[in-house]
Amino acid sequence: MANTPVDSIPARRVLTDPAGLARYQHDEAEWAPYGTPIAVVRPQSTEEVRDVVRHCLAHRIPVVPRGAGTGLSGGANAVDGAIVLSFEDMNRIVHIDAAERLAVVQPGVVNDDLRAACAEHGLWYPPDPASSPWSTIGGNVATNAGGMCCVKYGVTRDYVLGLEVVNGLGEVVSLGRRTAKGVAGYDLAGLMVGSEGTLGVITEITVRLRPARPQERTVAGYFGSVVAAGEAVTAVTASGVIPSALELVDRHCLAAVDAWKKMGLSADADVVLLGRVDTPGAEGDAEAELVRGCFERAGATWAAVSTDQQEADALFQARRLAYPALERLGPVLTEDVCVPRTAVPEMLARIERTAARHDILVANIAHAGDGNLHPLIITPPGDEAARARAQLAFEDILDDAIALGGTVTGEHGVGLLKMRGMRKELGPAVLGMHHAVKAALDPHGILNPGKVLDSGPAAVV
Amino acid sequence: MANTPVDSIPARRVLTDPAGLARYQHDEAEWAPYGTPIAVVRPQSTEEVRDVVRHCLAHRIPVVPRGAGTGLSGGANAVDGAIVLSFEDMNRIVHIDAAERLAVVQPGVVNDDLRAACAEHGLWYPPDPASSPWSTIGGNVATNAGGMCCVKYGVTRDYVLGLEVVNGLGEVVSLGRRTAKGVAGYDLAGLMVGSEGTLGVITEITVRLRPARPQERTVAGYFGSVVAAGEAVTAVTASGVIPSALELVDRHCLAAVDAWKKMGLSADADVVLLGRVDTPGAEGDAEAELVRGCFERAGATWAAVSTDQQEADALFQARRLAYPALERLGPVLTEDVCVPRTAVPEMLARIERTAARHDILVANIAHAGDGNLHPLIITPPGDEAARARAQLAFEDILDDAIALGGTVTGEHGVGLLKMRGMRKELGPAVLGMHHAVKAALDPHGILNPGKVLDSGPAAVV
Repeated sequence: MANTPVDSIPARRVLTDPAGLARYQHDEAEWAPYGTPIAVVRPQSTEEVRDVVRHCLAHRIPVVPRGAGTGLSGGANAVDGAIVLSFEDMNRIVHIDAAERLAVVQPGVVNDDLRAACAEHGLWYPPDPASSPWSTIGGNVATNAGGMCCVKYGVTRDYVLGLEVVNGLGEVVSLGRRTAKGVAGYDLAGLMVGSEGTLGVITEITVRLRPARPQERTVAGYFGSVVAAGEAVTAVTASGVIPSALELVDRHCLAAVDAWKKMGLSADADVVLLGRVDTPGAEGDAEAELVRGCFERAGATWAAVSTDQQEADALFQARRLAYPALERLGPVLTEDVCVPRTAVPEMLARIERTAARHDILVANIAHAGDGNLHPLIITPPGDEAARARAQLAFEDILDDAIALGGTVTGEHGVGLLKMRGMRKELGPAVLGMHHAVKAALDPHGILNPGKVLDSGPAAVV
Repeated sequence: MANTPVDSIPARRVLTDPAGLARYQHDEAEWAPYGTPIAVVRPQSTEEVRDVVRHCLAHRIPVVPRGAGTGLSGGANAVDGAIVLSFEDMNRIVHIDAAERLAVVQPGVVNDDLRAACAEHGLWYPPDPASSPWSTIGGNVATNAGGMCCVKYGVTRDYVLGLEVVNGLGEVVSLGRRTAKGVAGYDLAGLMVGSEGTLGVITEITVRLRPARPQERTVAGYFGSVVAAGEAVTAVTASGVIPSALELVDRHCLAAVDAWKKMGLSADADVVLLGRVDTPGAEGDAEAELVRGCFERAGATWAAVSTDQQEADALFQARRLAYPALERLGPVLTEDVCVPRTAVPEMLARIERTAARHDILVANIAHAGDGNLHPLIITPPGDEAARARAQLAFEDILDDAIALGGTVTGEHGVGLLKMRGMRKELGPAVLGMHHAVKAALDPHGILNPGKVLDSGPAAVV
């Protein structure tokens, strides 16, 4: 072993130069701290991952698994002295089984690539995080990623049948199953989902697929306030229709997209709600009309079922562009609270008051149908005072979400940014159970240490 | 404390007389062993459950939680010296929240009672184990119960949002959430589901609900062999239609139902497949026709979409009656293997060969659309030789399911009957992880000991 930390990995797939390491130091959570790894290893097989984990076990080196680095909580951020395991070279779709409606993939497969490959078989992999053009299935599983269609089709967790994992003892294990059902033992595959690399390193994923997605209708509504839009969301839930998307984009996002792409959206609305309905046939047409009616009764200034696919796509494109458009204005501190659906209007009102109280810009995009809000706190570049105010606003929003019966993270994960919020949300007894599970499955504490949980029960307050 | 083992529980809800204890010694797994408890306690509140668990912790007494006792694997069987916690008096539907589409219930609520209460709000709790008229939500959660509509709507796990649990330290904890999404920490609520009382005692359950169920169409098909019926199942899966039920009933079941209820079913068919389709409108009509076509092309001797609700209900009633009808013939050893859907014909063929090889009667009912088969091994009362042959057949069926990529239990749980099969299915490394999790969350080993897992890692082979 010359300049590689693990004998079996060719040196060309082991980065140790400062420039190389720098590219793998953090994910997209700009506000989260990060350290300097001793090496970045790009494994090409499960055996290589196992070898790295065993090397790290022998030398008590932290292992930080990393997908595409699109995370928003710092979960993949390097810690000092760690080896970062980057899965970009394990990007093979091993197998799509149309008869069983499942796919077996390596963790580095990009979400949209899997979706495209499934479509060729007349199948559909639903989980659709906004990062789907770049983020990987491994990262999606590690964070239990959500997306726009979860409101009807569930989150990544609902599609994971089985996982191959290198566990905290350096063993390669198969968790879960390939069958539609199964209750032989504890749901350890489910436990791995959303554990952010702290309980095992995922090396292969078996996902459940659905038949090809039905055609969607789009229902758009313009509103004069976020609160009115929130009331429309509550009305849709009460109507019994389950939309295949129900997204909210506020005026700050619309303005940022307009400033960048000249789409002229912000002239027409303070807040846009975008619903989709994919129930087939006349029933679906009726459901779309019902959603439109909910929008109107909640006070929409304009609401329509779109018959123009191009127009509908442009509206959803604006929603997808909101985040990068806001990033052009300065560093974005991304929130991810989730509240009961009926609490969406109240949560949005509280966010507005929080922004005013701290004199800070907070834009809102939201998977509104799930109650999953993404307040985006933006500060001018270099403005340290604003940055301090932003952090106060961030914590206030978490407190409000907990007070309304919600959670500090709906789909982005705890990583580093939500550790304090999670402690408040769960309380000491549940945290104690977390630490017990972590110690049981990672007895030597090498798996992504310091993420999700503080390093030991002693740190819990 | 006079004759009660826990001071705070009134004596009238503590049974210690032999006749009283005998009624709580075992579930419906006739072939599983059971011991004699020192007491049966019927708690009425979370605090009482907590008091019992703390008493058991202090005195190192095993705790065996028990729902309605309808389990089929011995998971609720008493062990010698245990306290059985029977939840029949904690049977309150605490709250149905139509706006959030969720219900909060105590563990002793009967499945059908919850379904009926939801229907009054225009809502639906999908999980529908065959035991739904008697089994309780607590037991359903503990075993991650399935049922007929899982093929489209998933299992109990998919509906559990949050759990209140008394953990292995005697603490009352809230796991999971009330929101549609949430990733704050490990999925400990999911880990509890299907853990059969070995990781915590469930005292309250928050379940997700769906809007009222749409009307179903029934598609029935008669087949000359289980293998032809299995091929029809594979064809339905490949068609892209997701039926809301796809059940198989073989000639032994039909004959037993006929002998009991004189329905005249077995004269017409060797095997009946019962499909249901609940997609609304013309699209659903088309799907039902597609399913019928799949039946015919696989060689159905008769196949039709039922327009007669009474006739359709009679067929499904026959399916529900199969198990009690077979029990009239002698002790039933119930299997619960689940195989990949495409392996259903091969698995059914192997079961036929196993029955012939061991000269034993094996009847089949199956959630065929999930690949979840229930071979029912029946022996004449008192025939010890047949009983020995039945046990050989039981193990052969498990081995065949594993060989075909399946699992030893699709929905009934491991309990006592599937411990050996589970060890074979999972292998030593995954079992080691199970023992680590068990030791982490039940450090004193009082929670339903000896179920699912042997008492300690040393016992694992």
